[in-house]
Amino acid sequence: MSAGHELDSMFYPKSVAIVGASPNPTGWGGTSFLTRLIQLKFPGNLYPVNPKATEIQGLKAYPDVRSIPEPVDFVVVAVPAAVVPGVLEDCVIAGAKNVHVFSSGFSETGEEEGRRLEEKVVEITRNGGLRLVGPNCFGIYVPASGLTHWGARPTGSGSVAFVSQSGGHGEELSDYAQGLGIHFSKIISFGNACGLQVNDFLEYLAQDDDTEIITMYLEGVRDGDRFTQLVREINLTKPVIVWKGGLSDSGARAVASHTGSLAGESRMWQAFFAQTGAIRVHSLVEIIDMVMALKYPHVPQGKRCLLLGGGGGNAVALADIFSGEDLDVPPLSDETRRGLAEFIRLAGNSIRNPLDLWNVLDDIQLLRRCLDLVIADPVIDMVVLDRHAGSWGNEDRMRQRELNDYIIDFAKNNIYNKPVVVAMRMLEHDPDIIAAGARLRRDFALAGVPSYSSPADAARALGRLVKYREFLVESSGDKGPAR
Amino acid sequence: MSAGHELDSMFYPKSVAIVGASPNPTGWGGTSFLTRLIQLKFPGNLYPVNPKATEIQGLKAYPDVRSIPEPVDFVVVAVPAAVVPGVLEDCVIAGAKNVHVFSSGFSETGEEEGRRLEEKVVEITRNGGLRLVGPNCFGIYVPASGLTHWGARPTGSGSVAFVSQSGGHGEELSDYAQGLGIHFSKIISFGNACGLQVNDFLEYLAQDDDTEIITMYLEGVRDGDRFTQLVREINLTKPVIVWKGGLSDSGARAVASHTGSLAGESRMWQAFFAQTGAIRVHSLVEIIDMVMALKYPHVPQGKRCLLLGGGGGNAVALADIFSGEDLDVPPLSDETRRGLAEFIRLAGNSIRNPLDLWNVLDDIQLLRRCLDLVIADPVIDMVVLDRHAGSWGNEDRMRQRELNDYIIDFAKNNIYNKPVVVAMRMLEHDPDIIAAGARLRRDFALAGVPSYSSPADAARALGRLVKYREFLVESSGDKGPAR
Repeated sequence: MSAGHELDSMFYPKSVAIVGASPNPTGWGGTSFLTRLIQLKFPGNLYPVNPKATEIQGLKAYPDVRSIPEPVDFVVVAVPAAVVPGVLEDCVIAGAKNVHVFSSGFSETGEEEGRRLEEKVVEITRNGGLRLVGPNCFGIYVPASGLTHWGARPTGSGSVAFVSQSGGHGEELSDYAQGLGIHFSKIISFGNACGLQVNDFLEYLAQDDDTEIITMYLEGVRDGDRFTQLVREINLTKPVIVWKGGLSDSGARAVASHTGSLAGESRMWQAFFAQTGAIRVHSLVEIIDMVMALKYPHVPQGKRCLLLGGGGGNAVALADIFSGEDLDVPPLSDETRRGLAEFIRLAGNSIRNPLDLWNVLDDIQLLRRCLDLVIADPVIDMVVLDRHAGSWGNEDRMRQRELNDYIIDFAKNNIYNKPVVVAMRMLEHDPDIIAAGARLRRDFALAGVPSYSSPADAARALGRLVKYREFLVESSGDKGPAR
Repeated sequence: MSAGHELDSMFYPKSVAIVGASPNPTGWGGTSFLTRLIQLKFPGNLYPVNPKATEIQGLKAYPDVRSIPEPVDFVVVAVPAAVVPGVLEDCVIAGAKNVHVFSSGFSETGEEEGRRLEEKVVEITRNGGLRLVGPNCFGIYVPASGLTHWGARPTGSGSVAFVSQSGGHGEELSDYAQGLGIHFSKIISFGNACGLQVNDFLEYLAQDDDTEIITMYLEGVRDGDRFTQLVREINLTKPVIVWKGGLSDSGARAVASHTGSLAGESRMWQAFFAQTGAIRVHSLVEIIDMVMALKYPHVPQGKRCLLLGGGGGNAVALADIFSGEDLDVPPLSDETRRGLAEFIRLAGNSIRNPLDLWNVLDDIQLLRRCLDLVIADPVIDMVVLDRHAGSWGNEDRMRQRELNDYIIDFAKNNIYNKPVVVAMRMLEHDPDIIAAGARLRRDFALAGVPSYSSPADAARALGRLVKYREFLVESSGDKGPAR
């Protein structure tokens, strides 16, 4: 929510018209949008628009937007591209300012006809004062107002916003994230960006009380200076995570075919990240990995990791992986090592860092003793635990559950407030064990403990978290560290 | 097998003594080794050695190696470190040349006592002319001769060798790989490398008819010049894949704690890879991804990929990922695009490259038509197909199976001999769908089609394959391209 922003009526509409809904309930596009709004119990008025129908899914149908008896808060347009300009003209006449055009077939086709139609859309939008999302996109997803256009149903409302030039990414991300307990305030898929731009959405999200973290998938940005300025400001209070697509030559060509955008130069984007401190990622998984790290209340005060795993080769791999993300893996202090040596034999183990301690990872008493020692060590800022699933018998499974419950408690309540995160160890071919590992990862995530599909994923997210924290401290200057 | 190499008696022993086996059948170390050899039906003579027992697991036990009534081909030593020198002296006296020392507690502990013991081991080995593997390692795994020391049982024999300074990596790799249909000729875990060195094993594998691909996990190499020379030679006929661990500072410390090795400098290793053309990887998964690409009979004649996926944002991501691995994603030729345009509508799709064609990925007739066109395009050297699992109903599942069977046939038998590989699309939180995806990946792999857990993994392996092929062509000079 926000205090009277003009886009409020788009994100929290009291009425929605769906132009292009059809009486065929299995239809794609407008019909499926209507079905989803009904299924999600959209609380306001729904107006199907179709000149060939009088009733659709039990609702009175209207021949055009002008015939709807109230000024509609939000119009969704899902008709062939050639018909879109006419519908937009109707919206202007009817005073329906907020419009989402789902239809594709514009500049992204690379054909003359599409380009011409897109010019027309831009013209009507500008002259008519429309607030247009799209065309060629999935539009607005706001669980709190019952608004969604894709198949993955929201199961809750959260504090993460995702601004995306790919609707597919929006759907996939919403589904993936909520399975791991991360929910969204808003997802905005805005495709060819003929009307509202990423900057318009950013201005809204900056003042939106429901949004605490802003994530983005971008293909092209028009007003780069304003964008940089906005992100630089917002990033100081709401972390901004950006995946920029299309920086390779062939990626830029794919961007042109997808949203007709100009992908921009790699160098320009490097400068953007350096100036804004925005967190740079390269996939949807990395977005969620990062969100998980940011939402976790314990904040690392430095970059020094304690890594606890099993196996000597694995210890070497862990050290290399975390060092590769600009994190430190320092030797433990003498005092901690003396404490560990009291109950760990040296042959076949290592009490340096990474700790190579199979038996500790499998025994709650040893693990407790070990974690109590290492978390207190002043050379350590955070702890990463190797976990894995196996084809365990009942007894093992119960012991593992007890261990995992203990880890969750320790990760959330350790008195040092140091982050404790879990990295899954998944060198597996067996689908059942892979599923068990995924379940375990999800259990940690749902319990509020950042958990990653691999040590490499954990290292990447933690490395970025540390870098973001450093940016905040530097930016705060003599005002003292932020938060 | 080989023609009379002195290490033949170690890799294909007719008799094995296990020093440190105990009557307790659940014991670790020597006891478990003996159990595994019995379970695997090791065809030769087994001699448990334990001064406190007369019979172990139904076999006559001997008090020491000297008391065994025949010269033993291979002695496995699993006793506390302090006792190891005495056992080695017995081996020298008994004329048992091939020895594997499992025991840890030597230089890797960083303690004076361990260093002193290791010096003694080196001295006895050198003076007694022993061929020592270890200490502090899992030793030799040869499915063809019934030899294994770890829990993951071999299910077959293959053409891949793995030389590893981590036994844990050996066990994990053997298990992971064979689940995907890749089997080993030999796995050699050689730990602290006090006797036989990586160069000794390489010389053996170079002439070993059972080995076609050599993979390695190394922490430190002593005779670097000889190593470089050997790999440079072997790599021309048997691809050599190397994971070097411990190149970060903390990784180097972990290496010291693990096998007491000197990790060496990053720059030195860069030179090694440049000079030898060895394939550089950074994990066990990457080793197997690479082996899969190398074993596939179709060889890319260039670096130009056709990528077929669904979703516009996904197409941009695919293009960026493959470009990032030095592969090309060129636009299709006009002729191919004209052919595609005959049955694919432009709005919402892209027939450039990557192809963004959801419906083609779900319809065997369309897929066939599409693949027949793109595989024939002279601008394309290989094809990568996006696959994913879903929570499908029966009908969908059957259609998917038909599609996948068709893809397997096409990947193996297309008349252009161009590689066709599968990249799983796995943005999933649902453990059951994750398991279904893993099963699908495995099905492709077991059918002989390279399949990868993600587009990033596929791109990495294919990029390395192309680079390796280029190295072969350059190395062959005016003798024409190899193979």
